[in-house]
Amino acid sequence: MLVMDGLGGLPIGTNETNDTSGKTELETAHTPNLDKLAADGITGLHLPVGTGITPGSGPAHLGLFGYDPLEFQIGRGALEAVGIGFDLEKGDVAARGNFCTVDDSGKISDRRAGRIDTSTCQKLSELLNEKVKIDGVEVIVQAVREHRFLLVLRSDGLSDAVAETDPQRTGKAPLSPEAFEPKADKTSSIIADFVEQAAVILKDQRPANMLLLRGFSQLPDWPLFHELFGLKACAIAAYPMYRGVAKLVGMVPYEVDDDLDKEFALLEQYWSDYDFFFLHMKQTDSAGEDGDFAKKVSLIEEMDQMIPRAMKLKPDVVIVTGDHSTPAIMKKHSWHPVPLLLWSKLCRPDNVKEFGERACLGGSLGAAFPATDIMPLALANAGRLEKFGA
Amino acid sequence: MLVMDGLGGLPIGTNETNDTSGKTELETAHTPNLDKLAADGITGLHLPVGTGITPGSGPAHLGLFGYDPLEFQIGRGALEAVGIGFDLEKGDVAARGNFCTVDDSGKISDRRAGRIDTSTCQKLSELLNEKVKIDGVEVIVQAVREHRFLLVLRSDGLSDAVAETDPQRTGKAPLSPEAFEPKADKTSSIIADFVEQAAVILKDQRPANMLLLRGFSQLPDWPLFHELFGLKACAIAAYPMYRGVAKLVGMVPYEVDDDLDKEFALLEQYWSDYDFFFLHMKQTDSAGEDGDFAKKVSLIEEMDQMIPRAMKLKPDVVIVTGDHSTPAIMKKHSWHPVPLLLWSKLCRPDNVKEFGERACLGGSLGAAFPATDIMPLALANAGRLEKFGA
Repeated sequence: MLVMDGLGGLPIGTNETNDTSGKTELETAHTPNLDKLAADGITGLHLPVGTGITPGSGPAHLGLFGYDPLEFQIGRGALEAVGIGFDLEKGDVAARGNFCTVDDSGKISDRRAGRIDTSTCQKLSELLNEKVKIDGVEVIVQAVREHRFLLVLRSDGLSDAVAETDPQRTGKAPLSPEAFEPKADKTSSIIADFVEQAAVILKDQRPANMLLLRGFSQLPDWPLFHELFGLKACAIAAYPMYRGVAKLVGMVPYEVDDDLDKEFALLEQYWSDYDFFFLHMKQTDSAGEDGDFAKKVSLIEEMDQMIPRAMKLKPDVVIVTGDHSTPAIMKKHSWHPVPLLLWSKLCRPDNVKEFGERACLGGSLGAAFPATDIMPLALANAGRLEKFGA
Repeated sequence: MLVMDGLGGLPIGTNETNDTSGKTELETAHTPNLDKLAADGITGLHLPVGTGITPGSGPAHLGLFGYDPLEFQIGRGALEAVGIGFDLEKGDVAARGNFCTVDDSGKISDRRAGRIDTSTCQKLSELLNEKVKIDGVEVIVQAVREHRFLLVLRSDGLSDAVAETDPQRTGKAPLSPEAFEPKADKTSSIIADFVEQAAVILKDQRPANMLLLRGFSQLPDWPLFHELFGLKACAIAAYPMYRGVAKLVGMVPYEVDDDLDKEFALLEQYWSDYDFFFLHMKQTDSAGEDGDFAKKVSLIEEMDQMIPRAMKLKPDVVIVTGDHSTPAIMKKHSWHPVPLLLWSKLCRPDNVKEFGERACLGGSLGAAFPATDIMPLALANAGRLEKFGA
């Protein structure tokens, strides 16, 4: 499964410019290898979550992995941990934290402490790591970016059923971390203790002299990829967020430079060790977010050049798609369906001869193929599904 | 949202005549402006309720407004009130009434009293309005058409959990209005009282000397359009039924002559006052019901001529569709999917260049787009939806 992040696009010319003759990034790219795969395979566009829904990267990848993103939701704290590659363990409680500013009466005057720079955030996080002491609890504070940090509490018998301390507006004091149910009383006390100690430790700092905690959550208890699909799977991705989501469903993550050549080298190296490879290209999404149409085009062409290396490994099934659309003209994720191709020795080729948004509209997977159906279809094409009924 | 009622059609030549070369009403119509919108927008056909389901106008419009017609069902009495533009209030109980004929022993001999004419129905309704007296209850009888009338009871603490009095066949006496649950006892007594007084008042009338009541119901307690979608919405429609359904979901209804020019004048007049406009053209459906293929064609062309006026207002999103199909050759509503186009500055144009049933089959919305997905898709195209997940 080769995922070009944010693959789907829009033509440069749009109704905004009264020029709809243009092509999308993928349509513009010269992709002889992908076009050949599309011609020999089946094509369509997939819907990551649902009609009109713009997905974040986490839910979008869960969909590709066969997990309905509406059912399998990751708590904000756990997602923060995943996003920065923190190795959250079963039982840990994670929270997303903000350093903030409070006035002399303890009321919040700035929920983001003027968006302090990341190095200040790191300094404050280290201060808390060093000074906060709670009996029987390991407390880990890790800077994320600007005012944001990750808090992880590690101990026995913790629960994430605790209310956030962030009142979500200024002029109010931070809230106390109330337990939603009796079994969370212990965790609630630990968090209250942490906040109290942090308030003293941060008191003389400026502008970040206090903190707010949100999204207490634990590692989700989901059925694993190999349990669901019987596939020993690994993830080759340069960015921690994607390795993290893959790891959440039980794939073995491989860290690698943000370099397609190195990613394919890993694919070749571990080819005989796994049944399923998720290979992630981040830069297409970044180029889209930057509004760099031409760069996104050339990155897609770079992936195209790798296809022969993948085919040389003689895969049973090849899937090429994106997790969502990131049209360069929008500079952000969007709701538009995502081009999808699936190649196998036993697929029934449709009439589509090239890999592009509008070409794929005529493909046999249709214009709104549910992302969560990709894995079952891949399994069928790999000959790994039993007959249903006699 | 421009709705041509009953837009979907069938070719004059059909399999019945062994001539399938013909065009539908929409395909026949000369619609350069709609074709341009289709070329610049996304297209498909929508399914109002489900495969093979022929919808009534109420459910079909609810679907367009984003309310699943199978989940959001209006009681028959309340729908009758909506249909004739009666201003039903919260707490009112409405019923659909029939004037009927009973014999000397009180048994029903004609459930529709020979379909008395509407003027007789009006006379009898006025008689009941004048003579029925129930302490603490306002009783309103309003003629509908032929033998049909609307009964509305207005008081505190009413319930619609009351069984109909119509045994649905002749040779039986009208049933007593039993309460389905204790809290409906009061309403049940009031209805019994009404029926008893009506029996005396109507006793000497011929042929309608009695009445039957069905479908006791109250205004539904639904989430409102602006709560669901964050849009301040209004409805421009000549017929009370459509204003009524729009009002049920919280749109502000504007009454207008059955004249597209006047409807668009209202659209222009109130353009800055609302976020969402539902503009309804009834005559396409009426022409279909009359079997007047040519008239339906020319009405569609009339709507086409209005498109430039709509575009001059610089809308973010334009939706053009029908609520259901009313093929002229069938002279009634049908189950056939309905042509749909959506235009926005950020839609990804598909390959469809004209607005017609068969052209739209190749559109990116597919051939069976759920009507209830139109609103979410419109919101996405208007940039009004948040990203799902991080």
